[in-house]
Amino acid sequence: MNDSPEYLKKRAFFDSLLTIYGRKPVLEALEDHNLPVHKLHLADSNRKDQLITRIEQLASARNIEIAHWDRKGLSRISKNARQDQGVALDLALPHYGSAETFLETPQQKPFELLALDGITNPQNLGMIIRSACAGGIDGIILPRKGCAQVDPLVIKASVGTLFKTRILRCDQLAPVLEKFAIKGARVCALSSHAKDTLRTIGDEKPTIFVLGNETHGVSTAVENVCTHRLRIPMQNGVESLNVAITAALISFRHQY
Amino acid sequence: MNDSPEYLKKRAFFDSLLTIYGRKPVLEALEDHNLPVHKLHLADSNRKDQLITRIEQLASARNIEIAHWDRKGLSRISKNARQDQGVALDLALPHYGSAETFLETPQQKPFELLALDGITNPQNLGMIIRSACAGGIDGIILPRKGCAQVDPLVIKASVGTLFKTRILRCDQLAPVLEKFAIKGARVCALSSHAKDTLRTIGDEKPTIFVLGNETHGVSTAVENVCTHRLRIPMQNGVESLNVAITAALISFRHQY
Repeated sequence: MNDSPEYLKKRAFFDSLLTIYGRKPVLEALEDHNLPVHKLHLADSNRKDQLITRIEQLASARNIEIAHWDRKGLSRISKNARQDQGVALDLALPHYGSAETFLETPQQKPFELLALDGITNPQNLGMIIRSACAGGIDGIILPRKGCAQVDPLVIKASVGTLFKTRILRCDQLAPVLEKFAIKGARVCALSSHAKDTLRTIGDEKPTIFVLGNETHGVSTAVENVCTHRLRIPMQNGVESLNVAITAALISFRHQY
Repeated sequence: MNDSPEYLKKRAFFDSLLTIYGRKPVLEALEDHNLPVHKLHLADSNRKDQLITRIEQLASARNIEIAHWDRKGLSRISKNARQDQGVALDLALPHYGSAETFLETPQQKPFELLALDGITNPQNLGMIIRSACAGGIDGIILPRKGCAQVDPLVIKASVGTLFKTRILRCDQLAPVLEKFAIKGARVCALSSHAKDTLRTIGDEKPTIFVLGNETHGVSTAVENVCTHRLRIPMQNGVESLNVAITAALISFRHQY
Protein backbone atom coordinates (compact mmCIF):
# COMPACT_ATOMS: atom_id res chain seq x y z
CA MET A 1 0.00 0.00 0.00
CA ASN A 2 1.30 3.39 -1.01
CA ASP A 3 1.00 5.77 1.93
CA SER A 4 3.37 8.57 1.00
CA PRO A 5 2.03 11.99 2.06
CA GLU A 6 1.72 12.89 -1.63
CA TYR A 7 -0.41 9.83 -2.35
CA LEU A 8 -2.58 10.28 0.74
CA LYS A 9 -3.27 13.88 -0.19
CA LYS A 10 -4.28 12.88 -3.69
CA ARG A 11 -6.49 10.08 -2.37
CA ALA A 12 -8.22 12.45 0.07
CA PHE A 13 -8.86 14.84 -2.81
CA PHE A 14 -10.41 12.17 -5.02
CA ASP A 15 -12.49 10.91 -2.07
CA SER A 16 -13.92 14.41 -1.73
CA LEU A 17 -15.18 14.59 -5.33
CA LEU A 18 -18.92 14.37 -5.89
CA THR A 19 -20.15 14.37 -9.47
CA ILE A 20 -23.62 15.81 -10.00
CA TYR A 21 -25.46 16.09 -13.32
CA GLY A 22 -28.48 17.58 -15.03
CA ARG A 23 -28.77 21.17 -16.29
CA LYS A 24 -30.78 22.63 -13.41
CA PRO A 25 -28.80 21.02 -10.54
CA VAL A 26 -25.47 21.96 -12.18
CA LEU A 27 -26.61 25.55 -12.74
CA GLU A 28 -27.77 25.84 -9.12
CA ALA A 29 -24.46 24.47 -7.87
CA LEU A 30 -22.50 26.96 -10.00
CA GLU A 31 -24.61 29.81 -8.68
CA ASP A 32 -23.75 28.87 -5.09
CA HIS A 33 -20.36 30.46 -4.47
CA ASN A 34 -19.90 28.45 -1.25
CA LEU A 35 -19.50 25.26 -3.27
CA PRO A 36 -15.94 24.44 -4.31
CA VAL A 37 -16.20 23.29 -7.93
CA HIS A 38 -13.47 21.16 -9.48
CA LYS A 39 -14.46 20.72 -13.13
CA LEU A 40 -17.38 21.14 -15.54
CA HIS A 41 -18.08 18.44 -18.15
CA LEU A 42 -20.12 19.14 -21.29
CA ALA A 43 -21.24 16.89 -24.13
CA ASP A 44 -20.38 18.19 -27.64
CA SER A 45 -23.89 17.23 -28.74
CA ASN A 46 -25.55 19.78 -26.41
CA ARG A 47 -28.03 22.06 -28.07
CA LYS A 48 -27.27 25.56 -26.74
CA ASP A 49 -30.32 26.53 -24.73
CA GLN A 50 -30.56 29.25 -22.09
CA LEU A 51 -29.43 26.94 -19.30
CA ILE A 52 -26.31 25.75 -21.14
CA THR A 53 -25.36 29.32 -22.05
CA ARG A 54 -25.75 30.41 -18.43
CA ILE A 55 -23.74 27.39 -17.22
CA GLU A 56 -20.87 28.26 -19.59
CA GLN A 57 -20.94 31.92 -18.57
CA LEU A 58 -20.80 31.08 -14.86
CA ALA A 59 -18.00 28.55 -15.31
CA SER A 60 -15.88 31.00 -17.25
CA ALA A 61 -16.61 33.84 -14.77
CA ARG A 62 -15.51 31.53 -11.94
CA ASN A 63 -12.43 30.28 -13.84
CA ILE A 64 -13.61 26.70 -13.73
CA GLU A 65 -11.98 24.13 -15.99
CA ILE A 66 -14.32 22.87 -18.73
CA ALA A 67 -13.90 19.43 -20.34
CA HIS A 68 -15.67 18.57 -23.59
CA TRP A 69 -16.74 15.02 -24.37
CA ASP A 70 -18.71 13.03 -26.90
CA ARG A 71 -22.02 11.65 -25.60
CA LYS A 72 -20.44 8.37 -24.49
CA GLY A 73 -17.54 10.03 -22.69
CA LEU A 74 -19.94 12.24 -20.75
CA SER A 75 -22.13 9.35 -19.67
CA ARG A 76 -19.03 7.58 -18.30
CA ILE A 77 -18.56 10.59 -16.04
CA SER A 78 -22.17 11.19 -15.02
CA LYS A 79 -22.85 7.45 -14.75
CA ASN A 80 -26.43 8.35 -15.70
CA ALA A 81 -26.81 8.85 -19.46
CA ARG A 82 -30.59 9.03 -19.16
CA GLN A 83 -30.73 11.98 -16.83
CA ASP A 84 -27.46 13.89 -17.25
CA GLN A 85 -28.82 16.11 -20.07
CA GLY A 86 -25.26 16.41 -21.40
CA VAL A 87 -23.90 18.18 -18.31
CA ALA A 88 -21.93 17.03 -15.26
CA LEU A 89 -20.06 18.87 -12.54
CA ASP A 90 -17.36 17.67 -10.15
CA LEU A 91 -17.66 19.25 -6.73
CA ALA A 92 -14.72 19.02 -4.33
CA LEU A 93 -16.65 18.86 -1.08
CA PRO A 94 -14.61 19.43 2.06
CA HIS A 95 -17.06 17.28 4.08
CA TYR A 96 -17.07 14.40 1.64
CA GLY A 97 -14.63 11.60 2.27
CA SER A 98 -14.03 7.93 2.90
CA ALA A 99 -15.20 5.99 5.95
CA GLU A 100 -11.81 4.26 6.15
CA THR A 101 -9.95 7.55 6.28
CA PHE A 102 -12.30 8.82 9.02
CA LEU A 103 -11.65 5.63 10.99
CA GLU A 104 -7.87 6.14 10.74
CA THR A 105 -8.05 9.79 11.80
CA PRO A 106 -7.93 10.47 15.56
CA GLN A 107 -11.17 12.20 16.66
CA GLN A 108 -11.25 14.77 19.45
CA LYS A 109 -14.45 13.54 21.08
CA PRO A 110 -16.61 10.40 20.89
CA PHE A 111 -18.36 10.72 17.54
CA GLU A 112 -21.89 9.78 16.53
CA LEU A 113 -22.46 8.56 12.99
CA LEU A 114 -25.39 7.19 11.04
CA ALA A 115 -24.73 4.27 8.67
CA LEU A 116 -27.21 3.55 5.89
CA ASP A 117 -27.89 -0.06 4.94
CA GLY A 118 -30.09 -0.40 1.84
CA ILE A 119 -31.84 2.97 1.91
CA THR A 120 -33.13 2.90 -1.67
CA ASN A 121 -35.57 5.83 -1.77
CA PRO A 122 -33.83 9.10 -2.81
CA GLN A 123 -36.49 11.15 -0.99
CA ASN A 124 -35.67 9.32 2.25
CA LEU A 125 -31.93 9.70 1.70
CA GLY A 126 -32.32 13.46 1.22
CA MET A 127 -34.52 13.77 4.30
CA ILE A 128 -32.09 11.71 6.39
CA ILE A 129 -29.22 14.02 5.39
CA ARG A 130 -31.29 17.13 6.17
CA SER A 131 -32.43 15.89 9.59
CA ALA A 132 -29.07 14.48 10.61
CA CYS A 133 -27.31 17.70 9.63
CA ALA A 134 -29.80 19.82 11.58
CA GLY A 135 -29.56 17.49 14.58
CA GLY A 136 -25.77 17.73 14.62
CA ILE A 137 -24.73 14.17 13.76
CA ASP A 138 -21.00 13.94 12.99
CA GLY A 139 -21.34 12.08 9.69
CA ILE A 140 -23.26 9.62 7.55
CA ILE A 141 -21.68 6.43 6.19
CA LEU A 142 -23.13 5.86 2.72
CA PRO A 143 -22.01 2.67 0.95
CA ARG A 144 -21.78 2.58 -2.85
CA LYS A 145 -23.61 -0.76 -2.92
CA GLY A 146 -27.31 -1.16 -2.15
CA CYS A 147 -28.18 2.45 -1.33
CA ALA A 148 -29.62 5.31 -3.34
CA GLN A 149 -26.71 7.47 -4.52
CA VAL A 150 -26.38 11.23 -4.32
CA ASP A 151 -28.23 12.52 -7.38
CA PRO A 152 -30.31 15.61 -8.19
CA LEU A 153 -33.38 14.17 -6.41
CA VAL A 154 -31.38 13.60 -3.23
CA ILE A 155 -29.77 17.04 -3.43
CA LYS A 156 -33.23 18.57 -3.77
CA ALA A 157 -34.70 16.57 -0.87
CA SER A 158 -31.73 17.53 1.33
CA VAL A 159 -32.63 21.22 0.86
CA GLY A 160 -29.04 22.41 0.64
CA THR A 161 -27.78 20.41 3.64
CA LEU A 162 -25.93 17.80 1.57
CA PHE A 163 -23.06 20.24 1.16
CA LYS A 164 -22.81 20.85 4.93
CA THR A 165 -22.89 17.22 6.00
CA ARG A 166 -19.92 14.90 6.35
CA ILE A 167 -20.68 12.03 3.99
CA LEU A 168 -18.36 9.05 4.44
CA ARG A 169 -18.19 6.69 1.48
CA CYS A 170 -17.33 3.00 1.46
CA ASP A 171 -17.94 0.12 -0.94
CA GLN A 172 -19.73 -2.28 1.34
CA LEU A 173 -21.04 -1.51 4.80
CA ALA A 174 -20.43 -4.70 6.82
CA PRO A 175 -16.60 -4.87 6.57
CA VAL A 176 -16.25 -1.17 7.44
CA LEU A 177 -18.59 -1.39 10.42
CA GLU A 178 -16.63 -4.39 11.64
CA LYS A 179 -13.43 -2.30 11.62
CA PHE A 180 -15.18 0.45 13.59
CA ALA A 181 -16.35 -2.14 16.14
CA ILE A 182 -12.81 -3.55 16.49
CA LYS A 183 -11.57 -0.01 17.15
CA GLY A 184 -14.05 0.24 20.05
CA ALA A 185 -17.10 1.96 18.56
CA ARG A 186 -20.59 0.79 19.48
CA VAL A 187 -22.34 -0.31 16.29
CA CYS A 188 -26.10 -0.23 16.92
CA ALA A 189 -28.71 -1.71 14.57
CA LEU A 190 -32.06 0.07 14.86
CA SER A 191 -34.84 -2.51 14.88
CA SER A 192 -38.40 -2.35 16.17
CA HIS A 193 -37.92 -5.87 17.58
CA ALA A 194 -34.92 -4.95 19.77
CA LYS A 195 -35.15 -5.30 23.55
CA ASP A 196 -33.12 -2.21 24.52
CA THR A 197 -34.24 1.32 23.76
CA LEU A 198 -32.29 4.21 22.27
CA ARG A 199 -32.27 5.85 25.69
CA THR A 200 -29.88 3.21 27.08
CA ILE A 201 -27.07 4.59 24.87
CA GLY A 202 -25.03 7.41 26.40
CA ASP A 203 -22.55 9.62 24.60
CA GLU A 204 -19.35 8.55 26.34
CA LYS A 205 -18.25 6.18 23.53
CA PRO A 206 -18.10 6.59 19.74
CA THR A 207 -21.35 5.21 18.34
CA ILE A 208 -22.71 4.30 14.93
CA PHE A 209 -26.46 3.97 14.44
CA VAL A 210 -27.32 1.68 11.53
CA LEU A 211 -30.55 2.36 9.66
CA GLY A 212 -31.88 -0.47 7.49
CA ASN A 213 -33.94 -0.79 4.34
CA GLU A 214 -37.40 0.80 4.31
CA THR A 215 -39.13 -2.60 4.12
CA HIS A 216 -36.66 -5.26 5.23
CA GLY A 217 -34.70 -3.43 7.93
CA VAL A 218 -31.01 -4.01 8.60
CA SER A 219 -29.53 -6.82 6.45
CA THR A 220 -28.23 -10.01 8.02
CA ALA A 221 -24.62 -9.37 6.90
CA VAL A 222 -24.67 -5.98 8.64
CA GLU A 223 -26.61 -7.13 11.69
CA ASN A 224 -23.93 -9.78 12.28
CA VAL A 225 -21.26 -7.11 12.87
CA CYS A 226 -23.47 -4.92 15.10
CA THR A 227 -22.64 -4.82 18.79
CA HIS A 228 -26.06 -3.53 19.92
CA ARG A 229 -29.69 -3.66 18.81
CA LEU A 230 -31.92 -0.74 19.74
CA ARG A 231 -35.51 0.33 19.28
CA ILE A 232 -37.39 3.58 19.67
CA PRO A 233 -40.37 3.04 22.00
CA MET A 234 -43.68 3.59 20.20
CA GLN A 235 -47.24 4.18 21.40
CA ASN A 236 -50.61 2.96 20.11
CA GLY A 237 -49.28 -0.33 18.78
CA VAL A 238 -47.45 1.37 15.91
CA GLU A 239 -44.90 -1.06 14.50
CA SER A 240 -42.46 1.08 12.58
CA LEU A 241 -41.37 4.61 11.73
CA ASN A 242 -40.25 6.16 8.47
CA VAL A 243 -36.46 5.82 8.33
CA ALA A 244 -35.94 9.59 8.03
CA ILE A 245 -38.01 10.08 11.19
CA THR A 246 -35.84 7.53 12.98
CA ALA A 247 -32.72 9.38 11.76
CA ALA A 248 -34.12 12.64 13.15
CA LEU A 249 -35.03 11.18 16.55
CA ILE A 250 -31.48 9.78 16.87
CA SER A 251 -29.73 12.94 15.66
CA PHE A 252 -31.75 15.35 17.81
CA ARG A 253 -31.82 13.34 21.00
CA HIS A 254 -29.25 15.50 22.83
CA GLN A 255 -30.28 18.72 21.19
CA TYR A 256 -33.76 19.70 22.13
CA MET B 1 -78.80 25.38 18.75
CA ASN B 2 -80.27 21.93 19.21
CA ASP B 3 -78.42 20.11 21.98
CA SER B 4 -80.81 17.31 22.91
CA PRO B 5 -78.93 14.10 23.77
CA GLU B 6 -80.47 12.50 20.68
CA TYR B 7 -79.14 15.25 18.43
CA LEU B 8 -75.70 15.29 20.02
CA LYS B 9 -75.38 11.53 19.58
CA LYS B 10 -76.31 11.82 15.91
CA ARG B 11 -73.89 14.70 15.41
CA ALA B 12 -71.05 12.75 17.05
CA PHE B 13 -71.81 9.82 14.75
CA PHE B 14 -71.70 11.96 11.60
CA ASP B 15 -68.51 13.64 12.83
CA SER B 16 -66.92 10.19 13.06
CA LEU B 17 -67.62 9.29 9.42
CA LEU B 18 -64.69 9.22 7.03
CA THR B 19 -65.40 8.48 3.38
CA ILE B 20 -62.60 6.80 1.48
CA TYR B 21 -62.68 5.80 -2.19
CA GLY B 22 -60.85 3.84 -4.87
CA ARG B 23 -61.07 0.09 -5.40
CA LYS B 24 -57.82 -0.92 -3.71
CA PRO B 25 -58.17 1.30 -0.59
CA VAL B 26 -61.82 0.25 -0.14
CA LEU B 27 -60.94 -3.42 -0.51
CA GLU B 28 -58.11 -3.10 2.03
CA ALA B 29 -60.41 -1.35 4.49
CA LEU B 30 -63.05 -4.08 4.13
CA GLU B 31 -60.43 -6.76 4.73
CA ASP B 32 -59.43 -5.12 8.03
CA HIS B 33 -61.96 -6.39 10.55
CA ASN B 34 -60.84 -3.81 13.10
CA LEU B 35 -62.33 -1.02 11.01
CA PRO B 36 -65.98 -0.24 11.75
CA VAL B 37 -67.62 0.23 8.35
CA HIS B 38 -70.86 2.18 8.00
CA LYS B 39 -71.86 1.88 4.34
CA LEU B 40 -70.52 0.87 0.92
CA HIS B 41 -71.35 3.01 -2.14
CA LEU B 42 -71.14 1.62 -5.68
CA ALA B 43 -71.71 3.25 -9.07
CA ASP B 44 -74.13 1.38 -11.36
CA SER B 45 -71.72 1.92 -14.22
CA ASN B 46 -68.98 -0.24 -12.62
CA ARG B 47 -67.52 -2.91 -14.85
CA LYS B 48 -67.38 -6.05 -12.67
CA ASP B 49 -63.72 -6.82 -12.31
CA GLN B 50 -62.04 -9.00 -9.69
CA LEU B 51 -61.73 -6.16 -7.19
CA ILE B 52 -65.41 -5.16 -7.41
CA THR B 53 -66.51 -8.79 -7.04
CA ARG B 54 -64.31 -9.22 -3.96
CA ILE B 55 -65.59 -5.92 -2.50
CA GLU B 56 -69.21 -7.06 -2.91
CA GLN B 57 -68.46 -10.46 -1.40
CA LEU B 58 -66.76 -8.95 1.65
CA ALA B 59 -69.52 -6.39 2.19
CA SER B 60 -72.21 -9.03 2.08
CA ALA B 61 -70.21 -11.40 4.35
CA ARG B 62 -69.85 -8.55 6.86
CA ASN B 63 -73.53 -7.54 6.56
CA ILE B 64 -72.62 -4.06 5.38
CA GLU B 65 -75.29 -1.88 3.79
CA ILE B 66 -74.69 -1.25 0.08
CA ALA B 67 -76.03 1.84 -1.71
CA HIS B 68 -76.17 1.99 -5.52
CA TRP B 69 -75.80 5.28 -7.36
CA ASP B 70 -75.47 6.66 -10.84
CA ARG B 71 -72.02 8.07 -11.66
CA LYS B 72 -72.98 11.59 -10.55
CA GLY B 73 -74.50 10.44 -7.27
CA LEU B 74 -71.36 8.51 -6.42
CA SER B 75 -69.07 11.41 -7.15
CA ARG B 76 -71.15 13.58 -4.78
CA ILE B 77 -70.26 11.07 -2.06
CA SER B 78 -66.60 10.47 -2.90
CA LYS B 79 -66.05 14.18 -3.71
CA ASN B 80 -63.40 12.91 -6.14
CA ALA B 81 -64.94 11.71 -9.42
CA ARG B 82 -61.52 11.37 -11.02
CA GLN B 83 -60.08 8.92 -8.56
CA ASP B 84 -63.02 7.13 -6.92
CA GLN B 85 -63.16 4.35 -9.58
CA GLY B 86 -66.89 4.01 -8.86
CA VAL B 87 -66.40 2.92 -5.25
CA ALA B 88 -66.66 4.72 -1.89
CA LEU B 89 -66.82 3.51 1.68
CA ASP B 90 -68.01 5.28 4.84
CA LEU B 91 -65.94 4.33 7.86
CA ALA B 92 -67.30 5.16 11.30
CA LEU B 93 -64.01 5.79 13.05
CA PRO B 94 -64.16 5.92 16.83
CA HIS B 95 -61.14 8.28 16.90
CA TYR B 96 -62.51 10.65 14.30
CA GLY B 97 -64.44 13.65 15.54
CA SER B 98 -64.82 17.39 15.66
CA ALA B 99 -62.38 19.79 17.30
CA GLU B 100 -65.29 21.72 18.84
CA THR B 101 -66.69 18.59 20.49
CA PHE B 102 -63.24 17.73 21.85
CA LEU B 103 -62.96 21.24 23.27
CA GLU B 104 -66.33 20.91 25.04
CA THR B 105 -65.48 17.50 26.50
CA PRO B 106 -63.67 17.53 29.86
CA GLN B 107 -60.22 15.87 29.51
CA GLN B 108 -58.65 13.85 32.31
CA LYS B 109 -55.13 15.21 31.86
CA PRO B 110 -53.49 18.12 30.06
CA PHE B 111 -53.64 17.11 26.41
CA GLU B 112 -51.12 17.67 23.63
CA LEU B 113 -52.46 18.18 20.12
CA LEU B 114 -50.97 19.02 16.75
CA ALA B 115 -52.86 21.48 14.54
CA LEU B 116 -52.14 21.56 10.80
CA ASP B 117 -52.20 24.89 8.99
CA GLY B 118 -51.86 24.55 5.23
CA ILE B 119 -50.13 21.15 5.02
CA THR B 120 -50.82 20.50 1.33
CA ASN B 121 -48.60 17.49 0.57
CA PRO B 122 -50.47 14.18 1.17
CA GLN B 123 -47.17 12.37 1.76
CA ASN B 124 -46.34 14.80 4.57
CA LEU B 125 -49.85 14.52 6.05
CA GLY B 126 -49.57 10.72 6.13
CA MET B 127 -46.09 10.87 7.70
CA ILE B 128 -47.26 13.39 10.31
CA ILE B 129 -50.13 11.09 11.31
CA ARG B 130 -47.80 8.08 11.52
CA SER B 131 -45.17 9.87 13.62
CA ALA B 132 -47.65 11.62 15.90
CA CYS B 133 -49.50 8.36 16.55
CA ALA B 134 -46.26 6.51 17.34
CA GLY B 135 -45.09 9.35 19.58
CA GLY B 136 -48.35 9.31 21.55
CA ILE B 137 -49.82 12.71 20.67
CA ASP B 138 -53.47 12.98 21.84
CA GLY B 139 -54.90 14.18 18.53
CA ILE B 140 -54.43 16.10 15.31
CA ILE B 141 -56.61 19.06 14.36
CA LEU B 142 -57.13 18.91 10.58
CA PRO B 143 -59.14 21.78 9.05
CA ARG B 144 -61.23 21.17 5.92
CA LYS B 145 -59.87 24.35 4.35
CA GLY B 146 -56.30 24.70 3.10
CA CYS B 147 -54.95 21.26 4.01
CA ALA B 148 -54.56 18.01 2.11
CA GLN B 149 -57.56 15.82 2.96
CA VAL B 150 -57.57 12.19 3.99
CA ASP B 151 -57.44 10.26 0.71
CA PRO B 152 -55.90 6.98 -0.43
CA LEU B 153 -52.42 8.56 -0.73
CA VAL B 154 -52.59 9.81 2.86
CA ILE B 155 -53.92 6.49 4.14
CA LYS B 156 -51.02 4.73 2.41
CA ALA B 157 -48.40 7.16 3.76
CA SER B 158 -49.83 6.78 7.27
CA VAL B 159 -49.09 3.01 7.10
CA GLY B 160 -52.25 1.97 8.94
CA THR B 161 -51.94 4.55 11.73
CA LEU B 162 -54.70 6.85 10.42
CA PHE B 163 -57.26 4.53 11.95
CA LYS B 164 -55.59 4.62 15.38
CA THR B 165 -55.15 8.38 15.59
CA ARG B 166 -57.66 10.87 16.95
CA ILE B 167 -58.31 13.21 14.03
CA LEU B 168 -60.25 16.35 15.02
CA ARG B 169 -61.98 18.13 12.16
CA CYS B 170 -62.93 21.80 11.87
CA ASP B 171 -63.74 24.14 9.00
CA GLN B 172 -61.17 26.84 9.61
CA LEU B 173 -58.28 26.64 12.03
CA ALA B 174 -57.94 30.17 13.46
CA PRO B 175 -61.41 30.48 15.12
CA VAL B 176 -61.10 27.03 16.71
CA LEU B 177 -57.59 27.68 18.03
CA GLU B 178 -58.83 30.94 19.49
CA LYS B 179 -61.50 29.05 21.46
CA PHE B 180 -58.86 26.63 22.75
CA ALA B 181 -56.72 29.57 23.85
CA ILE B 182 -59.67 31.20 25.66
CA LYS B 183 -60.26 27.93 27.50
CA GLY B 184 -56.64 28.07 28.77
CA ALA B 185 -54.67 25.99 26.29
CA ARG B 186 -51.23 27.10 25.11
CA VAL B 187 -51.35 27.51 21.34
CA CYS B 188 -47.79 27.36 20.00
CA ALA B 189 -46.77 28.25 16.46
CA LEU B 190 -43.64 26.38 15.35
CA SER B 191 -41.35 28.78 13.51
CA SER B 192 -37.62 28.70 12.85
CA HIS B 193 -37.52 32.44 13.64
CA ALA B 194 -38.97 32.07 17.17
CA LYS B 195 -36.91 33.11 20.19
CA ASP B 196 -38.03 30.35 22.59
CA THR B 197 -37.26 26.69 22.03
CA LEU B 198 -39.55 23.67 22.27
CA ARG B 199 -37.79 22.69 25.49
CA THR B 200 -39.30 25.68 27.36
CA ILE B 201 -42.76 24.07 27.14
CA GLY B 202 -43.61 21.68 29.99
CA ASP B 203 -46.54 19.27 30.10
CA GLU B 204 -48.52 20.81 32.97
CA LYS B 205 -50.99 22.66 30.71
CA PRO B 206 -52.98 21.59 27.65
CA THR B 207 -50.93 22.52 24.59
CA ILE B 208 -51.49 22.70 20.85
CA PHE B 209 -48.49 22.75 18.49
CA VAL B 210 -49.32 24.44 15.20
CA LEU B 211 -47.43 23.25 12.11
CA GLY B 212 -47.48 25.55 9.10
CA ASN B 213 -47.30 25.21 5.35
CA GLU B 214 -44.24 23.46 3.87
CA THR B 215 -43.01 26.68 2.23
CA HIS B 216 -44.72 29.62 3.91
CA GLY B 217 -44.99 28.42 7.52
CA VAL B 218 -47.87 29.32 9.82
CA SER B 219 -50.36 31.73 8.21
CA THR B 220 -50.87 35.22 9.60
CA ALA B 221 -54.51 34.55 10.57
CA VAL B 222 -53.45 31.55 12.64
CA GLU B 223 -50.30 33.15 14.05
CA ASN B 224 -52.46 35.99 15.40
CA VAL B 225 -54.33 33.62 17.72
CA CYS B 226 -51.21 31.77 18.90
CA THR B 227 -50.07 32.39 22.47
CA HIS B 228 -46.48 31.15 21.96
CA ARG B 229 -43.89 30.89 19.20
CA LEU B 230 -41.37 28.08 19.40
CA ARG B 231 -38.44 26.77 17.43
CA ILE B 232 -36.47 23.56 17.43
CA PRO B 233 -32.75 24.37 17.81
CA MET B 234 -30.75 23.33 14.73
CA GLN B 235 -27.04 22.80 14.10
CA ASN B 236 -24.82 23.60 11.10
CA GLY B 237 -26.81 26.64 10.03
CA VAL B 238 -29.74 24.53 8.82
CA GLU B 239 -32.76 26.78 8.44
CA SER B 240 -35.75 24.45 8.42
CA LEU B 241 -36.91 20.89 8.90
CA ASN B 242 -39.43 18.82 6.98
CA VAL B 243 -42.80 19.31 8.68
CA ALA B 244 -43.21 15.58 9.40
CA ILE B 245 -39.81 15.58 11.13
CA THR B 246 -40.94 18.52 13.25
CA ALA B 247 -44.15 16.64 14.11
CA ALA B 248 -42.09 13.63 15.19
CA LEU B 249 -39.68 15.65 17.35
CA ILE B 250 -42.66 17.24 19.12
CA SER B 251 -44.62 14.02 19.56
CA PHE B 252 -41.68 11.95 20.82
CA ARG B 253 -40.13 14.51 23.11
CA HIS B 254 -41.32 12.86 26.35
CA GLN B 255 -41.09 9.33 25.04
CA TYR B 256 -37.55 8.35 24.31
